[in-house]
Amino acid sequence: MSDALKVALLGAGTVGSQVARVFLEQSEEFSSRVGRPLELVGIAVKNINKPRPGIDRALLTDDALGLVSRGDIDIVVEVIGGVDPAKDLILAAVTHGASVVTANKALLSEFGPEIYKAAEHHGVDIYYEAAVAGAIPIIRPLRESLVGDEITAVTGIVNGTTNFILEQMTNLGSSYEEVLKEAQELGYAEPDPTADVEGFDAAAKAAILASLAFHTKVRLSDVSREGITAITAADIAAAAEVNGVIKLLARCDVADDGSISVGVHPTIISRKHPLAGIHGAYNAIFVESRYAGRLMFMGPGAGGTPTASAVLGDVVQAARNRVRGTFAPGLLAYLDRKITPAADAKARYFLSLQVVDQPGVLAGIAATFAKHGVSLQSVRQNESEANHAGLNLVTHVAKAGDISATITDLEQLDFVKPGIKTLRVEGA
Amino acid sequence: MSDALKVALLGAGTVGSQVARVFLEQSEEFSSRVGRPLELVGIAVKNINKPRPGIDRALLTDDALGLVSRGDIDIVVEVIGGVDPAKDLILAAVTHGASVVTANKALLSEFGPEIYKAAEHHGVDIYYEAAVAGAIPIIRPLRESLVGDEITAVTGIVNGTTNFILEQMTNLGSSYEEVLKEAQELGYAEPDPTADVEGFDAAAKAAILASLAFHTKVRLSDVSREGITAITAADIAAAAEVNGVIKLLARCDVADDGSISVGVHPTIISRKHPLAGIHGAYNAIFVESRYAGRLMFMGPGAGGTPTASAVLGDVVQAARNRVRGTFAPGLLAYLDRKITPAADAKARYFLSLQVVDQPGVLAGIAATFAKHGVSLQSVRQNESEANHAGLNLVTHVAKAGDISATITDLEQLDFVKPGIKTLRVEGA
Repeated sequence: MSDALKVALLGAGTVGSQVARVFLEQSEEFSSRVGRPLELVGIAVKNINKPRPGIDRALLTDDALGLVSRGDIDIVVEVIGGVDPAKDLILAAVTHGASVVTANKALLSEFGPEIYKAAEHHGVDIYYEAAVAGAIPIIRPLRESLVGDEITAVTGIVNGTTNFILEQMTNLGSSYEEVLKEAQELGYAEPDPTADVEGFDAAAKAAILASLAFHTKVRLSDVSREGITAITAADIAAAAEVNGVIKLLARCDVADDGSISVGVHPTIISRKHPLAGIHGAYNAIFVESRYAGRLMFMGPGAGGTPTASAVLGDVVQAARNRVRGTFAPGLLAYLDRKITPAADAKARYFLSLQVVDQPGVLAGIAATFAKHGVSLQSVRQNESEANHAGLNLVTHVAKAGDISATITDLEQLDFVKPGIKTLRVEGA
Repeated sequence: MSDALKVALLGAGTVGSQVARVFLEQSEEFSSRVGRPLELVGIAVKNINKPRPGIDRALLTDDALGLVSRGDIDIVVEVIGGVDPAKDLILAAVTHGASVVTANKALLSEFGPEIYKAAEHHGVDIYYEAAVAGAIPIIRPLRESLVGDEITAVTGIVNGTTNFILEQMTNLGSSYEEVLKEAQELGYAEPDPTADVEGFDAAAKAAILASLAFHTKVRLSDVSREGITAITAADIAAAAEVNGVIKLLARCDVADDGSISVGVHPTIISRKHPLAGIHGAYNAIFVESRYAGRLMFMGPGAGGTPTASAVLGDVVQAARNRVRGTFAPGLLAYLDRKITPAADAKARYFLSLQVVDQPGVLAGIAATFAKHGVSLQSVRQNESEANHAGLNLVTHVAKAGDISATITDLEQLDFVKPGIKTLRVEGA
């Protein structure tokens, strides 16, 4: 039997422990698929004394840098997460000639280009299928399968926690606070839910998706971001009135001038859109391209075992490349696209206004939209109470800046009450 | 600028003409993505005198074998279809050191192992993303992304023509014959629809999917097959009664003993199953795996331009490998799995019976199922007419052979009328 390829694992938390387990369960299969055995030679953890059932204690080390710098490691799997120390460890691994498999969206969305460049320079692989949408194969399809096409938009539900919360609010009519509490009790949301509910997690994934789809560098700071904490039961009900549901969507778009806009926003999506049917903790990515048309990829977006599947698919692929003495091309950021200024980014909008129910109100409102070049697709007046009425409006595609200016002007009108609510709209 | 990689195209029909068009439109992009220019150096066609708008006549040749045997071709794209002469041309191309991209499901489902072996022997790529489900990236996810996992089942809607026909029958309550005629007039079905409606097209795709998913050789002759020509408006109505729709499903399964069963059958699928929502000419592949869980891939299943997208993704990837002096591993058929005998293949079944409405009927029928070890999940009696009633039964998972034996015995009962109808059932 030929020499085994040596694999080092950094991290043994939710994902890492599953990577170790599945690796051991599947090692004969992997050997057949690669043509050489794979051996797990070390696992770097913070605390080597913590009991870890199923993991050989002899493999544990608290010297992660020493492990990746041994010089004989073929593949380093990084599932620590976060920038520090993951970044230094990955760069050290690459410098010592190891290919890297990582699930680290935060790191790649900030320092991806630097890491891809180092990998290319040292002739090693950097694979990261698990960094976006857990077990769903989306990185490889964008990086390889669709490389003969021109992707025009990517829209994704890439955060299961917020998808669960919004769906429960929709099904139960409950408030955000009530459902968040339930999600925390069930373990679907973290005690500090900020990264999920404020859209940071989704924004990091959106940056990675946009980089791949549009062949350009996109960083987390380029992504406009809005969380779900302000969504109310009334918003959910208003979405239902226009036959839609609210989802936290990551949206990557190309403008006519070739600039791109990448954003994460709670969005009303038509119930007929395939993304509207993505339930609970599932994720899905909807890709629009010039030639292939509309594609969707759906599956579990998180969880130790599904993420381990994605990580180990990359490990096997990196091992195959190793056996053949080659490595895959990294990020093809050969374009240097501009980021569309936030005010120029286009979307359709839903606006909810409270107005005094008197003659001329609709004319005044319509004139305000027209003044800013925003055309209306639909206007619906709710039943009036006393002398007040609710108006729900949906616009055609408009620039964010024009919508803001319209709202500023609407709020000057004496028959419009303060507190105009807006949401983006996707689908017919 | 470094030397261009030379691409030869075999066939300029619906797919080939779009491959040529998109290739020319995207050639600068491809050059950036590969790191070297790609040049289309020849197109083999049957009739070089036929007008072909947008295609340079100087590229045309009717000597396909001469083109692939030039010795300087880097990548041969085969979109002629069928076994003859595609097989000889592909083998000649491989022998002369060219990588091959093909969309030929018929060829691969019969002679795939021979072709993959020749490619491996000569150190060239054989890519075939377009052979299954048009533009949907499914081959690469199975071949690479999920290679760290253990796939347990693949279920697909892989034929758009039959999906369109069954959906129209469902929506309009029309007969198969009426809808087929409409589909032919719209160009969605061929004048001779046999390959689609009898399930041959889907069976070829199922053989390819099963080979990849289960790491074993599966040929078209291993696939059990049943078309949609016998489906009636009454069957569609019966499916609706159990909250299902009828789809032509390709299903690839692993039995407990590791043997596999691959079949194409019209199947009642629960409206809650993600595949139930796949409309018209769309295709979708639903993958179940041990670690990743349930994944679905959806998109346009056919058409010149979507298929060209898949073909050209493969061309760019083959070109990248060429530049790096490597090639991708072919079919990993390292397992030699048995094919489950048709009688032992398991599924859930729907049965529709006409019975004389008299005491003891249900007891007699239930006893017949019990005799063959088939347990019933649900029994529903329709309104009786005169002294007759319709019975719709759904079984738990049972062997095909036990269902056949049950039906034979049921037909002996004097209160059961001849003509018992069966369909498979998928989903809750």
